[in-house]
Amino acid sequence: MKNLKSSAAASSSAAKPLSLSDLNLSTACREVTDLPLTSVQSEIESLVLSLAHSILSGNGFSFPVPSRAAANQLYVPELDRIVLKDKSSARHFANVSTVRKATITTRILQLIHQLCLKNIHVTKRDLFYTDVKLFQDQTQSDTILDDVSCILGCTRSSLNVVAAEKGVVVGRLIFSDNGDMIDCTKMGMGGKAIPPNIDRVGDMQSDALFILLVEKDAAYMRLAEDRFYNRFPCIIVTAKGQPDVATRLFLRKMKTELKLPVLALVDSDPYGLKILSVYGCGSKNMSYDSANLTTPDIKWLGIRPSDLDKYKIPEQCRLPMTEQDIKTGRDLLEEDFVKKNPGWVEELNIMVKSKQKAEIQALSSFGFQYLSEVYLPLKLQQQDWL
Amino acid sequence: MKNLKSSAAASSSAAKPLSLSDLNLSTACREVTDLPLTSVQSEIESLVLSLAHSILSGNGFSFPVPSRAAANQLYVPELDRIVLKDKSSARHFANVSTVRKATITTRILQLIHQLCLKNIHVTKRDLFYTDVKLFQDQTQSDTILDDVSCILGCTRSSLNVVAAEKGVVVGRLIFSDNGDMIDCTKMGMGGKAIPPNIDRVGDMQSDALFILLVEKDAAYMRLAEDRFYNRFPCIIVTAKGQPDVATRLFLRKMKTELKLPVLALVDSDPYGLKILSVYGCGSKNMSYDSANLTTPDIKWLGIRPSDLDKYKIPEQCRLPMTEQDIKTGRDLLEEDFVKKNPGWVEELNIMVKSKQKAEIQALSSFGFQYLSEVYLPLKLQQQDWL
Repeated sequence: MKNLKSSAAASSSAAKPLSLSDLNLSTACREVTDLPLTSVQSEIESLVLSLAHSILSGNGFSFPVPSRAAANQLYVPELDRIVLKDKSSARHFANVSTVRKATITTRILQLIHQLCLKNIHVTKRDLFYTDVKLFQDQTQSDTILDDVSCILGCTRSSLNVVAAEKGVVVGRLIFSDNGDMIDCTKMGMGGKAIPPNIDRVGDMQSDALFILLVEKDAAYMRLAEDRFYNRFPCIIVTAKGQPDVATRLFLRKMKTELKLPVLALVDSDPYGLKILSVYGCGSKNMSYDSANLTTPDIKWLGIRPSDLDKYKIPEQCRLPMTEQDIKTGRDLLEEDFVKKNPGWVEELNIMVKSKQKAEIQALSSFGFQYLSEVYLPLKLQQQDWL
Repeated sequence: MKNLKSSAAASSSAAKPLSLSDLNLSTACREVTDLPLTSVQSEIESLVLSLAHSILSGNGFSFPVPSRAAANQLYVPELDRIVLKDKSSARHFANVSTVRKATITTRILQLIHQLCLKNIHVTKRDLFYTDVKLFQDQTQSDTILDDVSCILGCTRSSLNVVAAEKGVVVGRLIFSDNGDMIDCTKMGMGGKAIPPNIDRVGDMQSDALFILLVEKDAAYMRLAEDRFYNRFPCIIVTAKGQPDVATRLFLRKMKTELKLPVLALVDSDPYGLKILSVYGCGSKNMSYDSANLTTPDIKWLGIRPSDLDKYKIPEQCRLPMTEQDIKTGRDLLEEDFVKKNPGWVEELNIMVKSKQKAEIQALSSFGFQYLSEVYLPLKLQQQDWL
């Protein structure tokens, strides 16, 4: 088992130091960074000061807003993630077509400034409710919140606006949450809820050899109850389905600070691979922050399409793929992040050709503890990941 | 604040010792109890033994299955919860219309027996996947799992089949989860995930004066970050929306063991009241287990329809009720558990008449910390709950 950490760490440490600025891309790209609250505050203040100057000099005011349209997105193979190109447009106050958005932008900036002064966190829903009359519906305040991140050049977490928490973590990890030290080997079966605000998370320590990223709750529970992390020293984490921002930030922080390989256990269907890709190279909607949200070099441990025959998953536990599933699978084959990994292409081809999918739970057909006592130990010992 | 505990505890302790058997109801009712794993095992063994006797004496075999149809449900005002009446029918193996269900029942009993021997917990999904060919789809194995609870006379938790975990808890509570001692004042902002299996939860200690039951994640987060439980000693718990079995069991256990009043903070809409009612008097689907799943005497703290005017919630933060909302509100007015509380009827009448609803988040229109610094302190000091 010892060579698990070294082998996977070696491949990841080589990829780690690369950043957008190292690449000298022909296209200019835009990325945001984590800023301390005081810097966000002074960024807002200097932005507003420049608007005031502009108004006083008789030019009115406008915001330079980066575009987040599909045409402004770019997959960078060297970084293995999506980034935002640098196209942007001016959002004028004195223009009928943009006055509304300019007003909302100003109001959001003012609210974020308040959060900076008070040093508290709120949800997007809270933000919406502070001025329902202006925002009208939450998609409008949400969209402009992302714009404000881009304008200020900082991550959404830096703005102290957080999403609902969803993820849980258990296993060989100690960390501090808002000043409290948490030992995740002493969290029983329920595990520790992943905090919504990553900036209050710190002091990570671990003697684990790897991080096991689990797509679903049921598999997580099986591993937590069996205290799988005691037999194979690891940290087990799940977002219970679609990855949320808090879990993505937490995973990245673990990977970066503890320098551990990440092995993913997802359903053998296009959706499972899509979830893996969101952790690995980001979602298009938040590509401006992909440097902070993505975890490089995640390995696909299972359930892989080739496992279905290899582990003799009974026919009745496999499900036929729908037309939509097959289309999603074919679309994934065209994605750069899949293409750059020949092993993944091969697996995905098996899936699309066999038109069969299977959930992690399908392993229960061999007994409830087959996952924790047979499948995962075998996979890990054979280093069978891609 | 001190009299908060005594006043609310007095009213609840009077109601506490009442059980179904005390009432001498004219209708016979059926209830299940928590059984230790060894008893579940011997119940299954003696049931199977009786089936074998029946087969050997040439009578074939059948299961006596309690009915869970609406006509077999009864609201008992003295207990303030729904219970199951004692109608049941025989599920014969040697009958074309019931052979399939009888077979599935036998298989589920066998699987539960395995869980007893191994002393592990599984999810309903795991259970389904052990025999997809027989069960065909998960609703079939789920339904018969509930039947098996009724047949054996024990709770579903006693069968070691658990649902996904959803709830979180934070504040003045110490408890053990699977042998680990958890101090919920030291869980940062994320809080502790409520364990899926209540039978591994124990040793509850607390110096809180009350339990604050919160409908939604966002309000929970605000209170957790502000460490509201330090100013008003309490335990804060949420199931993030629709209550799941694990959170309902956990709330009941806290209330019973710590003898604390429970104050509920839900949205001011029919759905919020419905959620309160599921915690308080149970859902129809699991009425056979209402004695274990329900928490008696939950107080409706807010957001109540009368609060909208009292706290001057701005018009634009209130939402018009849809036709469906109004219908649900009117239906609730006919429910026994609402009728028995005149204060609730009055509030619900205000809601249906004004045709306005509001989320907890609507309080953010007065500032992000209005909930934790103004609204709740006022409510608690004025003992303004129903």
